[in-house]
Amino acid sequence: LHDWGSRDQTFIDTTLAMREHLVTVADGGHEFTTVPIQGSGTFAVEAMIGTFLPRHGKLLIVVNGAYGQRITKICDYLKRAYVVTKTPEDAPPDPNDVEAILKTDAAISHVVIVQCETTSGILNPLKEIAAVVAEGNRRLMIDAMSAFGAIPFSLSDVACDALAASSNKCFEGVPGIGFVLCRKSALAETEGNAHSLSLDLFDQWQALEGGGQWRFTPPTQVVFAFNRALEAHAAEGGVEARYRRYTNNCNTLIDGMHELGFETLLPHNLQAPIIVTFRMPIDPKFDFQVFYDKLKEKGFVIYPGKLTIADSFRMGCIGALTGRDIQAAVAAVGKTMSEMGVTSGKAA
Amino acid sequence: LHDWGSRDQTFIDTTLAMREHLVTVADGGHEFTTVPIQGSGTFAVEAMIGTFLPRHGKLLIVVNGAYGQRITKICDYLKRAYVVTKTPEDAPPDPNDVEAILKTDAAISHVVIVQCETTSGILNPLKEIAAVVAEGNRRLMIDAMSAFGAIPFSLSDVACDALAASSNKCFEGVPGIGFVLCRKSALAETEGNAHSLSLDLFDQWQALEGGGQWRFTPPTQVVFAFNRALEAHAAEGGVEARYRRYTNNCNTLIDGMHELGFETLLPHNLQAPIIVTFRMPIDPKFDFQVFYDKLKEKGFVIYPGKLTIADSFRMGCIGALTGRDIQAAVAAVGKTMSEMGVTSGKAA
Repeated sequence: LHDWGSRDQTFIDTTLAMREHLVTVADGGHEFTTVPIQGSGTFAVEAMIGTFLPRHGKLLIVVNGAYGQRITKICDYLKRAYVVTKTPEDAPPDPNDVEAILKTDAAISHVVIVQCETTSGILNPLKEIAAVVAEGNRRLMIDAMSAFGAIPFSLSDVACDALAASSNKCFEGVPGIGFVLCRKSALAETEGNAHSLSLDLFDQWQALEGGGQWRFTPPTQVVFAFNRALEAHAAEGGVEARYRRYTNNCNTLIDGMHELGFETLLPHNLQAPIIVTFRMPIDPKFDFQVFYDKLKEKGFVIYPGKLTIADSFRMGCIGALTGRDIQAAVAAVGKTMSEMGVTSGKAA
Repeated sequence: LHDWGSRDQTFIDTTLAMREHLVTVADGGHEFTTVPIQGSGTFAVEAMIGTFLPRHGKLLIVVNGAYGQRITKICDYLKRAYVVTKTPEDAPPDPNDVEAILKTDAAISHVVIVQCETTSGILNPLKEIAAVVAEGNRRLMIDAMSAFGAIPFSLSDVACDALAASSNKCFEGVPGIGFVLCRKSALAETEGNAHSLSLDLFDQWQALEGGGQWRFTPPTQVVFAFNRALEAHAAEGGVEARYRRYTNNCNTLIDGMHELGFETLLPHNLQAPIIVTFRMPIDPKFDFQVFYDKLKEKGFVIYPGKLTIADSFRMGCIGALTGRDIQAAVAAVGKTMSEMGVTSGKAA
């Protein structure tokens, strides 16, 4: 709530602390640096693609949902060359497919993958994909928006040039900034690549390494809130502790919803503990908007489905929530079903 | 401090209220709409240029400071054609010059001007420039970042297609979003122009007019804070009242600093009541960093100079400040001078 001066030393110190903390969380050592960027996660992903993919590079986009698809849209805007490898929304990409494409298309310089595709809630096989990309001598970029901070991950295990995420997912900060963890040696080669002044990570990096200031007014309150969120993340026990809490939330949610008859889209081994997709109940008395509104009245906000392959809705496991909150959400779902006269969440 | 759902109806209503309020402030009637964009003011200016200037258009950029110069940099990134007309940082552009350029260069489709160039603090002759642009049948864009909300202005007096500003200047909100007031008929023609998905105002507009949602996660707390700031702006008496308060702040500042011997860069008739540039004192005991730090200790944060033509520093007149705050700032300057052994702010 303080009116911080964004050019002032206090704020410069806060920005540096945030940047260093994030590298540490990802085990990035001295090889990586954090470049924050104003805006949403998509701004960070677009900044990553625009900065790291050379104008004459070619990108292989691994798609199994809306966020992978969005990267194709970004490339259309940027007029950069790309090719897509696609699996259904409930299926992980096959590293052998990626390997085969890299072998046949020598023009591909970079690969990008979404770590947790929240369209379905699937956890993609990041390490396996990274291994075939490294084997094929290509560069990897990761959209880790909804995974970073809660899914165990080390930059020493996964060879990549850049990883994008934001303040407001697993770190539980407020929205307003994204950031990209950048391999310094790769970032140093990106001058002149970017299509946008605002989204040029190289230029932002130069300013941050120079005077320590953001080039353009940052959302100061958001940055301070993010630093507090990072402190809370560390105090809880870092990534491992958050993974355990979210996994417990996810299991509690799925078990409770199963008892009410609901069916998950994904088998358990593909499910990330981030967001769960449930198939739409077959009972004609089940109206999603009524369901949504009645849950909201009870203090629970859920998500509509984003699938193209099936009618569905989604419920999140992340945020400052414990198993007790999830139990209360499941109880509210049960109560709402009674109010609607729906006896089971059964989908088919 | 609430964890708002950005896809929820409450937030959708808040976004609409904000958009409509801003059109009303600018007297935009039914011809204009507000398209907000995540990020800083520069993000909004880049979005405006990228969306409104067609790929084969040509932009005349009226420059007398760093923010006009920044628009040339944006065009370099976007690879759009442009030409510059430049006056010194302490001189307003001459409408006759603009008129002459428009007559000789038929390729120019658009003109852009910074209303208040805070490099110096100068108020540029917007109405006169707008008149020659309209006369020459060209389209006008305005960077009104530091003016909109406090400098009397009506879209019914000034013919333009788009005007960019942000939440955190004269509306006294927190930083995190910019916005562009767009002439609907012009915006409707911009599909496919933008160089960036994140910064495409046409696409953002389509989403807002469709489901009322931002395309990508907005900084929800910033948006709610901005709406509260707009309510406070209206309660104070709107643009006229804010203009009076800032003018009083500005006059109090200049009078007080004059008494201490400081000299302003600009003559009074060119000075906007936003930020004032003072020439650097000639006294060798005056060290800017010491001056800055000692003022900060006393609770006053000032700005370094941004001029290329002279050594200077700047002091702001805007924000939730009254004449009494400005008097306290001037007193702190006087006390700091005593501590430094500086007897006068005289510049030459």
